[in-house]
Formats: sequence, structure tokens, C-alpha cells
Amino acid sequence: MRTVHVELGERSYPIYIGSGLLPQAAAYLIKHGLSAKSPHLIVTDEKVASYHLETLQTSLEKAGFRLVVSIVKSGEGSKSLSVYEEVMTSAIQGGLDRNSSVIALGGGVVGDLAGFVAATYMRGISFIQMPTTILAHDSSVGGKVAVNHPLAKNMIGAFHQPEFVLYDLDTLTTLPPREVSAGLAEMVKHGLIKDKTFAYWCKDHAAELLALDLDALGYGLERGVAIKAEVVSQDEREGGLRAILNLGHTIGHAIEAVGGYGEFLHGEAISIGMAGSALLAEALGRGDGIYAETTSMLTALNLPVVLPPHLNEDELMAAMMHDKKFKEGTMVFVVPDSIGSVSIVKDIPQTLVRDILKQLRKGGEVHV
Amino acid sequence: MRTVHVELGERSYPIYIGSGLLPQAAAYLIKHGLSAKSPHLIVTDEKVASYHLETLQTSLEKAGFRLVVSIVKSGEGSKSLSVYEEVMTSAIQGGLDRNSSVIALGGGVVGDLAGFVAATYMRGISFIQMPTTILAHDSSVGGKVAVNHPLAKNMIGAFHQPEFVLYDLDTLTTLPPREVSAGLAEMVKHGLIKDKTFAYWCKDHAAELLALDLDALGYGLERGVAIKAEVVSQDEREGGLRAILNLGHTIGHAIEAVGGYGEFLHGEAISIGMAGSALLAEALGRGDGIYAETTSMLTALNLPVVLPPHLNEDELMAAMMHDKKFKEGTMVFVVPDSIGSVSIVKDIPQTLVRDILKQLRKGGEVHV
Ligand SMILES: NC(=O)c1ccc[n+]([C@@H]2O[C@H](COP(=O)([O-])OP(=O)(O)OC[C@H]3O[C@@H](n4cnc5c(N)ncnc54)[C@H](O)[C@@H]3O)[C@@H](O)[C@H]2O)c1
Ligand SMILES: NC(=O)c1ccc[n+]([C@@H]2O[C@H](COP(=O)([O-])OP(=O)(O)OC[C@H]3O[C@@H](n4cnc5c(N)ncnc54)[C@H](O)[C@@H]3O)[C@@H](O)[C@H]2O)c1
Ligand SMILES: [Zn+2]
Ligand SMILES: [Zn+2]
Repeated sequence: MRTVHVELGERSYPIYIGSGLLPQAAAYLIKHGLSAKSPHLIVTDEKVASYHLETLQTSLEKAGFRLVVSIVKSGEGSKSLSVYEEVMTSAIQGGLDRNSSVIALGGGVVGDLAGFVAATYMRGISFIQMPTTILAHDSSVGGKVAVNHPLAKNMIGAFHQPEFVLYDLDTLTTLPPREVSAGLAEMVKHGLIKDKTFAYWCKDHAAELLALDLDALGYGLERGVAIKAEVVSQDEREGGLRAILNLGHTIGHAIEAVGGYGEFLHGEAISIGMAGSALLAEALGRGDGIYAETTSMLTALNLPVVLPPHLNEDELMAAMMHDKKFKEGTMVFVVPDSIGSVSIVKDIPQTLVRDILKQLRKGGEVHV
Repeated sequence: MRTVHVELGERSYPIYIGSGLLPQAAAYLIKHGLSAKSPHLIVTDEKVASYHLETLQTSLEKAGFRLVVSIVKSGEGSKSLSVYEEVMTSAIQGGLDRNSSVIALGGGVVGDLAGFVAATYMRGISFIQMPTTILAHDSSVGGKVAVNHPLAKNMIGAFHQPEFVLYDLDTLTTLPPREVSAGLAEMVKHGLIKDKTFAYWCKDHAAELLALDLDALGYGLERGVAIKAEVVSQDEREGGLRAILNLGHTIGHAIEAVGGYGEFLHGEAISIGMAGSALLAEALGRGDGIYAETTSMLTALNLPVVLPPHLNEDELMAAMMHDKKFKEGTMVFVVPDSIGSVSIVKDIPQTLVRDILKQLRKGGEVHV
């Protein structure tokens, strides 16, 4: 088993990563001082429940924990205020008190939703994450929890750090291949922003990662989580540094929005976005060959790097402008300096961004 | 002007109390570093808006602040998730960003609602309280913000400290007399739990307080706020000590619940509850004459001290049992030791509580 410590003063917590952890869940709750006297709430989604809920329930019930279970529909739609209210109702009816915890068993959707419930039930109770997607290695570090408002994603939320994260690699075996690749996009992103060696390691071990080889996956998640933890420790409330985690996200969010959420998985969209950032780096005269290097890493992980023709340039620009408040005519981007290092660059002309989108559509070939 | 500092480390904030403050609101926003570049959201209720919104708006708009205004219905019903969502919608449509603030202009209802919006909009933005009730001297200290769930009051919320509190005594002149007395119940409570001199001062200045004399009101609110601030500073997240603030509240909440919220104002219910706690103190052999002293203070402020006949004893007991998780057969109460000092007493037999309710119904006469 591997353990990463997220250092946040009195809100520090460990992330346990390994095989066979879910059947031992009860031991971890006990180790972290959670009481069997109070009921605990498991929040999960329909798909995850069908594969992994029983394992968790069995472990906890055998140890005498009383459980309340709230199963929501799979997908982003469950990150809504109405589902939030339903989960709150289960919590109240189940008699959760200040010593209870909310356990998120699932991907980023369940984690964000359950985390917001934990942050606000009786003004905040304990939260435990049990991620079942690769993408959730990203969402389980940093304490950001949220639901969506019909007008904007992640608009309603809080910062609420978990007591601990229990990352059982065995749960990942049921994950569809597209979800695997999408999760690996955030993993390689962590290499691209801060660790050249790790970025190349992801490329070199792409086959093992895609095959969910336990050793490769364990190491990759450990490094991915550790890099994110390092950034978050230095900037818990998102003052500045944390912005580097948004590599590829400005274009990525626009792709998700214009594609109408659902066409692209988040990891796929930011993969194209990271290819775009590499093109931007070259256009700004930074490090030669970054685009070729970046896209070779992404394609090795079966990730898309070309902007599809049906996504309209004006709509993408509008979505990016809406996403952030940009000063008249210029935009802010996270831009690679080289593989493993990035900077926040302000004052990027909108005309240049339009050029990049055009190149991105042709797989960079305009540029070459 | 009087200023009370609530000491909470980096979350410390000042409470400004005085006459003529609302017309100068802009100067306070500027003093506290709030930027006119970002829009700010005023949350208020229909009644308060009709009397005091224009004064606030004029001050802020003259100084160049852009405002979004959300006016909710008066009354506890606005502390709901659906009203919360409406206010969130106004915030998003109004383009609030991370440098915006939410300004609560109103009583405890508006303060709790607006505070929960501020705590969770974009994972937390600045919050400013401008209380317009006497009761809100209590709710503006401590950072507790919340909305109600249909199944339980204040169940969904957070801790979110304001940047500052601007308490303009002039706004209180439009408050109905029943609301004045109800607010004074929490003021005298602050004396009863921690400051004998202040408790007697409230009684001796009852006439001035009821007449909203500026000097008396200013001093009373300053002391009330300061006592609450002292308790909260020592126990921000409600670990233990803060429980003494619940003097009269166990019985009080039961009266509100059984009376069907609306029959009694919160302050009226806890006034009867504090009379009950005094009876309990005497039954436990603590300080002679506490009941007579306490009720003389409360009646001087036009507050009720007798439990009305139509509130069923079994229902009251059930409401109290539901309110807190009591161990089999016993209950926990905040009990006066003497005027100005209280203790948390565990293991109070339910049978004794029933006796107290019976005495309370007869205005203590069974006991005398
Ligand atoms: N809080 C943060 O810091 C943060 C960071 C990144 C992303 N996010 C959020 O995370 C969400 C995306 O996360 P996600 O990609 O994990 O989405 P998800 O939770 O929706 O999971 C993706 C899909 O895989 C299914 N699934 C999950 N685990 C499975 C398993 N083990 N076997 C089979 N199917 C499984 C789910 O039912 C769902 O259909 C977004 O809402 C995003 O905003 C949050
Ligand atoms: N957060 C806390 O620590 C805390 C503490 C105590 C109470 N509370 C909450 O506070 C709420 C009660 O507060 P409240 O008594 O101020 O209630 P409130 O805000 O509903 O105000 C009472 C009534 O007076 C009206 N009003 C307010 N100011 C007025 C003015 N200046 N002139 C004329 N009318 C005016 C309101 O419209 C309302 O009808 C409850 O929801 C309670 O849970 C919170
Ligand atoms: Zn992401
Ligand atoms: Zn009260």
C-alpha cells in the first residue's frame, strides 16, 4: 500500500492507495476515530453501486457500523441542488449527527456532491472519499466540493477536506476504457505542470496504465496525487499558484460547454486543451517541440488532441470569455515553458487564441 | 459609535454599533477593502426593504458600487433551499465574482440566508451583516449561517464569519414592539449566563430599552454582542462552552415546535424557557430566589414567562427528546448557578423536567 499525506496544517489527511482496501474499509474508519455509535451515510451512484457497494457495506456492517445509503443517478446531472436536497433528506431521516460521516463511493461527481453535503450538514461533519475512477485522483485532493447551478458549473460549493481517502485500485477494473483514458489525462497533466520525469514515465508506461496494471496504476496515482497535494498545500484557498492546475482547462471547458457536456469527457476535452496550450507555447517562442512531445504523450494514452470541425470557433471563444473575466481583448492562459514546467501568462491577444484554435483543428499542421 | 471586536484569529471582525451608520455604508465597504469593480449583492426582506433599502442603496450607488438586489418574503419561510437557489440565481445573473460580497440587510432570517449564500457562492465570498432587529445582535456574532430543511431547522449551513457588522440603531425604530421585546430576551440572556451586573442593568433600563432610547440600546447591544463574542472566541466551532448560549433554548425550541412556529416569536419562547431553567435551578437546590429574579427581569421587558395551557406536555417532551439525543431517561440542560452564571448539567431525570413544565404552566406557583 502507498500513502500520500496532503499537508494542510490541522486539516492534513492521508490518501491510502492500493489493492484490496475496500473490504477493509471498516478498519480505516476505526483507525480515524469514527464512531460506530452514530450512523454513517454512503453516497454512491447507480453504476458504482452495482459493482462495489456490497463490498463496502459488508465491511462496515460486520464491524457494527449503522449505515444510511443514498444512491443517485450516474452522471453530472446528479451534481444539482435538487439531488443535494434528496441526499440531505436521507441524512436527516437516517438520524445523522455531528459524529457521523459522509462517505463518497464513486467518481468525481459523487465526491463533489457528497462532499458538499458533508460540508453543510449541521454546518459540517466528517467526509471520507473512496474514489472509483482515475479522474477522482484529481478531485480527491484539495477539498473543493460543489454542485452545479443551471447557469454555471461548480458555482455552489465549499472547501471541505476529507478525513482520509481510501483509493482501492481494484474498483478501477470495472471502469470503461474511455473513462480510464480520460482519468489518465489529469495524471499526465500533473507531470506536465511540475515533473518532467513523471510526464515521460506516463508515456513510457501507457500500455500498463491502460491495462490497469496494479503497479503502474499505483505509482501513477501516487505521483499524480502527490503533485496535486504539493500545489494545494501551498495555496489551499486558490489564491494564485493553484491556477497552474488549470493547464488545458480554459480551452477544455469551452469544448465541454460547446460540445454540450456529454459529447466529450472532461479528460478528453482537457487533452485537446493541453495540445492547444503546447501550440500556444510554441507561438510565444517557448521551448521548441513542446507540441510534438505533448501530443505524443496524450495519444499514447488514447486521448484526442485534435479539435473536431463541428465545434464553432466563435462559440468556443464566447465560452472562454464567459468562463473567466478577461480584460478587453486579452486572455490569461497556463502555458508550458517546457515539459514539466508552466507559467501563467496574461495579456494573450484574442487573435492569437483564434489562431491556435485553427491550428488545433488541423492537428497542429498549420504551424509545422 | 461603539465598536466590538470579535476575536477569531485571522477571521476576526468588528461590529460597529451606532446611530446614522447606514447612510455611511459605502465608507465602511471601502474601509474594509471591498472593491467597486465587482458587483455586490444586497439580500433583504420585503418589510425591511420598504423602510431601509433606499438608504443603503443610495449610499453605495453614490460611491460607485454596482448593486444586485434580492428581496425575499419576510419571515422564517425564506430560510429554505428554494429561496437560497433563487438568491444564487440573482448572484450569478448579476455577475458576482470572487471579489464581490453579499450584504445582509435585515434580521436573523435574512442574515442566516444571505450568510449561507456568501459561504457557498463560488465556494465562499465576503459577507457583510447590517442587522435591523435586536435579535440579530445574537445572530450577527458567531458566523453560524443556515437554511432550514422541511424536517429540521438550521440543518443545512456553514460557519462563515462576516468581514464586518454595521448595526445602525436608527433602523430599529420601525421594529414592531413584540419584535423589540423578543430581541431583548436574547440580550438579557447574555447577562444571565455571564454578567450579573448587565442582567440587572437590563431590568433597570427596561423602559428605555423598550422605548428604543439610543444610549440604552447602544450600550445594551454592545454588552450583548461582547458577551456572545467572548463565548464564541473561546469555542468557534461549537465544541463545548458555546452550549451555555442555549440557556432557555431546550424548552424554548420545544415551545416553538409545538406551538407550530409563528405562534411564538423565538425570543418569547426562550423567555418562557429561561423561566423554566430558573425553576430547574431551584429544584436542584441552586441559589434561592433565582426564579423570582429571572422572571422579574423578563416581565420588565414585556416578555412571557408562563407556559400556556394549550401546549401539551407529552408533545413538549417529545420535541425536546427529538431536539437533542438524550441518553435513556435523562436530559442535558443549561442551568443557572446564580444570576450571571450557568452550568451544563447532565443526567437530569425526565420526570423532573415534567414537573418543571407543570410548574411553568402555573407561573411557578406549584413550587412556591
Ligand atoms: N473537486 C475537484 O477538485 C474536482 C477536480 C476534477 C474534477 N471534478 C469533478 O469530477 C467530475 C468528474 O469526475 P469523474 O470523471 O470521476 O465522473 P463520474 O463520477 O461521473 O464517473 C464517470 C462515470 O463512470 C462511472 N463509474 C465510476 N466509477 C466506476 C467504476 N469503478 N466502474 C464502472 N463505472 C464507474 C460513473 O457512474 C460515471 O458514469 C466532474 O463533475 C468534475 O467537475 C472535481
Ligand atoms: N445565526 C445565529 O447564530 C442565530 C442566532 C439566533 C437566531 N438566529 C435566527 O434568526 C432568525 C430570527 O431572527 P429575527 O427575529 O431577526 O427574525 P426576522 O429576520 O424574521 O425579523 C423579524 C420580523 O421583523 C421584520 N423586520 C426586520 N427588521 C425590521 C425593521 N427594522 N423594521 C420593521 N420590521 C423589521 C422582518 O421582516 C420580520 O417580519 C431565526 O431564523 C433564527 O434561527 C440565528
Ligand atoms: Zn480537470
Ligand atoms: Zn436564541
